[in-house]
Amino acid sequence: MEQRVSLISLGVDDLARSKAFYEELGWRGQEVEETVFFQTGGLAVVLWSREKLADDAEVPAGDRDPGFGGIVLAHNVRSIVEVDEVLAAAERAGARRVRAGRETFYGGYAGFFADPDGHVWEVAHNPGFTLQLDGTLTLPDFGTT
Amino acid sequence: MEQRVSLISLGVDDLARSKAFYEELGWRGQEVEETVFFQTGGLAVVLWSREKLADDAEVPAGDRDPGFGGIVLAHNVRSIVEVDEVLAAAERAGARRVRAGRETFYGGYAGFFADPDGHVWEVAHNPGFTLQLDGTLTLPDFGTT
Repeated sequence: MEQRVSLISLGVDDLARSKAFYEELGWRGQEVEETVFFQTGGLAVVLWSREKLADDAEVPAGDRDPGFGGIVLAHNVRSIVEVDEVLAAAERAGARRVRAGRETFYGGYAGFFADPDGHVWEVAHNPGFTLQLDGTLTLPDFGTT
Repeated sequence: MEQRVSLISLGVDDLARSKAFYEELGWRGQEVEETVFFQTGGLAVVLWSREKLADDAEVPAGDRDPGFGGIVLAHNVRSIVEVDEVLAAAERAGARRVRAGRETFYGGYAGFFADPDGHVWEVAHNPGFTLQLDGTLTLPDFGTT
């Protein structure tokens, strides 16, 4: 298995609501057959009915609000100011504030919001992780392996 | 908010077990401070304690097995044969088979497995989605927007 991810599919309860949320944040995607595809660098974020997503994988859809699903998506930015700006923009777009921005143990600054379906996003400035001009992230050599 | 994802953090119950699983699949990462970082194209997949991930975001960690968390990660490959190969490799590495490979409604072929913590991966061949030589995925122009 090659070391890469091709798509991140987020199960949603109301496609129009979720599409509007991400568009309000400035994202632009394509809607086709009740699915919204956003090109995000070298992969895609996909919005699709939570029920259909579960049915497709043949897993029980479970509760609409299952609590913490054990996955956090992070959006890294280039400055502390930008963390607060994105968190504020997310709230204006209808996100639930999960945790306000504050300094982190690794010398950065981060806060969290939840999208309309409860998917948790971290917005972070981590001076140790290089963001290229095109927004791709390159891990440092931690020197541990 | 720019249209990109920087990190995908997967909450795990046993870091060594999860690290071994992804390494068995051929991935190579760096472990630092009880965290494993895998560079996956222009972003990183991170393994971290589910409890710590929840604590960091200040959300209730909830059940260890919350059922379907509403997110599916996809790993697209270049052929049907490769879908079955990756699914088989995942099972050999200890994955739970979620759904065997079969043809999809969009003219592709896909199956699903769950990693040791239940995170669901789709392994798919989608002839409509271009995989570049470096593994990055480019969405087609669906002509709908």
